[in-house]
Amino acid sequence: MNDMGKALESVREREPLVQCITNFVTVNDCANIILACGGSPSMAHDKREVEESVAVSQALVCNMGAIEDTEAMILAGKEANRRGIPVVLDPVAVGGTQLRRDSAKQLLENVKFTAIRGNASEIKYLAGQETLGSGVDVSREDAVTSVSLLKTADLVKNLAISTGSVIALSGESDIISDGKETVILKNGCATMSRITGSGCMVTSMIGAFCGAMPDDGITAVCSAMAAMGIAGEKAEADRIAKGTGNATFRTDLIDAVFNMTGEGLNKGARYEIIR
Amino acid sequence: MNDMGKALESVREREPLVQCITNFVTVNDCANIILACGGSPSMAHDKREVEESVAVSQALVCNMGAIEDTEAMILAGKEANRRGIPVVLDPVAVGGTQLRRDSAKQLLENVKFTAIRGNASEIKYLAGQETLGSGVDVSREDAVTSVSLLKTADLVKNLAISTGSVIALSGESDIISDGKETVILKNGCATMSRITGSGCMVTSMIGAFCGAMPDDGITAVCSAMAAMGIAGEKAEADRIAKGTGNATFRTDLIDAVFNMTGEGLNKGARYEIIR
Amino acid sequence: MNDMGKALESVREREPLVQCITNFVTVNDCANIILACGGSPSMAHDKREVEESVAVSQALVCNMGAIEDTEAMILAGKEANRRGIPVVLDPVAVGGTQLRRDSAKQLLENVKFTAIRGNASEIKYLAGQETLGSGVDVSREDAVTSVSLLKTADLVKNLAISTGSVIALSGESDIISDGKETVILKNGCATMSRITGSGCMVTSMIGAFCGAMPDDGITAVCSAMAAMGIAGEKAEADRIAKGTGNATFRTDLIDAVFNMTGEGLNKGARYEIIR
Repeated sequence: MNDMGKALESVREREPLVQCITNFVTVNDCANIILACGGSPSMAHDKREVEESVAVSQALVCNMGAIEDTEAMILAGKEANRRGIPVVLDPVAVGGTQLRRDSAKQLLENVKFTAIRGNASEIKYLAGQETLGSGVDVSREDAVTSVSLLKTADLVKNLAISTGSVIALSGESDIISDGKETVILKNGCATMSRITGSGCMVTSMIGAFCGAMPDDGITAVCSAMAAMGIAGEKAEADRIAKGTGNATFRTDLIDAVFNMTGEGLNKGARYEIIR
Repeated sequence: MNDMGKALESVREREPLVQCITNFVTVNDCANIILACGGSPSMAHDKREVEESVAVSQALVCNMGAIEDTEAMILAGKEANRRGIPVVLDPVAVGGTQLRRDSAKQLLENVKFTAIRGNASEIKYLAGQETLGSGVDVSREDAVTSVSLLKTADLVKNLAISTGSVIALSGESDIISDGKETVILKNGCATMSRITGSGCMVTSMIGAFCGAMPDDGITAVCSAMAAMGIAGEKAEADRIAKGTGNATFRTDLIDAVFNMTGEGLNKGARYEIIR
Repeated sequence: MNDMGKALESVREREPLVQCITNFVTVNDCANIILACGGSPSMAHDKREVEESVAVSQALVCNMGAIEDTEAMILAGKEANRRGIPVVLDPVAVGGTQLRRDSAKQLLENVKFTAIRGNASEIKYLAGQETLGSGVDVSREDAVTSVSLLKTADLVKNLAISTGSVIALSGESDIISDGKETVILKNGCATMSRITGSGCMVTSMIGAFCGAMPDDGITAVCSAMAAMGIAGEKAEADRIAKGTGNATFRTDLIDAVFNMTGEGLNKGARYEIIR
């Protein structure tokens, strides 16, 4: 993995256009956090135009929260693959319904993903494990504990090898692997699960970082996730100091990404690399 | 009606999963206020998966702002009914167009609702009265005044009896009835009508409260509406003190729900029960 | 052009109902800024009901971000035209894809617009010029500079004459023309392009202003755009003073519109009229 701070500076310099096909719940937050980190968002999702849209973009984000747009994701994903544009998948609630399992199958069969980010239930489902996730949030049974951390890291690494994608499992500790390097990231705070869209937003940021550095997926993914986690820590400190709640936390989180510097990212990131 | 503070604590303990089929205007706010009060939101709305989604939920919210999802609401509503999961209806702008009148008719014929919450125009329409509401906001002619309060309370009570639902009419005074008890709730502030989504948000909270206490509809509905009103009063005091506007008010409103305690709810609630 | 402050006061007095057919990314912000300036928003977009919705409204806004709702826009636009209700077009990313070029063609052939507001790429496309805009943001090549300002003002004026609409080109300097008067407006700040929805929001406000003063398009459009720019300057001053970011900026921007007075609008507006 290369320098995270330089990765952020690279997003700010290159202003990658990130084409997102994403859900109506958090689409506004996703657009604003892409802008906050230095990218430029396009939220077009009509299957009649996404191929044209992605053709002028530097990255594509497919968020399965927009389950009705699966066909658009496949069209856009194939076009991105043809052009060598990075594609990021957020397999929202993938194990929860038959529709989502089918959608994920189609997406993975048709599109090569640069990176896939999900919670423990979602990543475990993709790795072929039984999961107990019933919705967009990780189930308690699937949550990664200090006991299960190394075992889960192996699962993440193996999924990275079998898919050829950088795999990122979000949780109290994030686990990120490209099959060669596996990184445990310890930034973030519990309040991030008290707003909607923490996951969608970090996936969108991963799109921006991959767009700025398409040839260094592991650095792009780790940098975006560390930036999100550090922003969450800043927003949490503000929340506690000011006695505010989850709505202000969301605003402060995006602000913290907006104001983050490369130096701040490097100083704040807490991680270890497991070979 | 039972203790409101305990109702809020019960939402915090049980963390009900609330499946919402709701409109794209305020869906993000609805998800965040469900999280603020202690619930867990799922905003899936595709008719191919809502039955599966609702089957693992503790409550279903049908918001007619998502008028294109009427079929999904009926499928999910029937499944919820089969499983004894509470269903809450927000009849957004029901009298305004033929499409909405038809949609409401289909919903009421096919689904048994635990609770229905609307403004005076919407509730009067459901009660079979002529109304003058032309959109999502209550019409001036329909607004409940001190003169018409008791008469309107009778209308609400009778609609509760005829539908078997807890009926909640939002306004300067809220009127809530399950046909046995009728409650006049006096919390809230005028700025709540200067943001979009006050109504949708409180209906979503009613879903969370019903999910936590499915056998005590009147307490669930009154507690959610009182919590919203008290949060509005807190946000309004902040707005006046800080000279902010409606956007900060929205943020402060959700924050106030996030920080509300059972004790604070009991202390802040102003209501009288009319037998 | 008539008094801007009085225009704002007129919105506050008349509370025009503004029917918007707009995109899912910024729909919540559009509704809240309409409320902030004194209007009342309706975001219905189903083609089965938009004619009924617009019939009771004072203005219609068609935002091409909602590209899948083109048919609804045409139905609603024709109904508005029949009733003499002002219609405002935001040609989002119009040159970017074939779908959008086709949609714009259909809209312009079927609906008479009171006002059309876009960025330089979008307005130049409508004027028949080659543009290089690839998405929702203006391309660097299309951005208006001090050198090209007068030439672009001619383009805007000529498009106003040929369409019979007030044309508003947003940028570092806004250019607005009804074919008789051409106004250069110098309010605003660069951070407005670091949030999603600045353009959509000002177009929504133009709808509210046109709804309040349907017979004075040039004043309505200039007043709405000046109000937005001044609000942006206020929010930018706050951002710099408080060290916040783009998310707080968005909140402060809407708040600044909420708190704007007619006097404040007249004092803050910086413009010159070119005959």
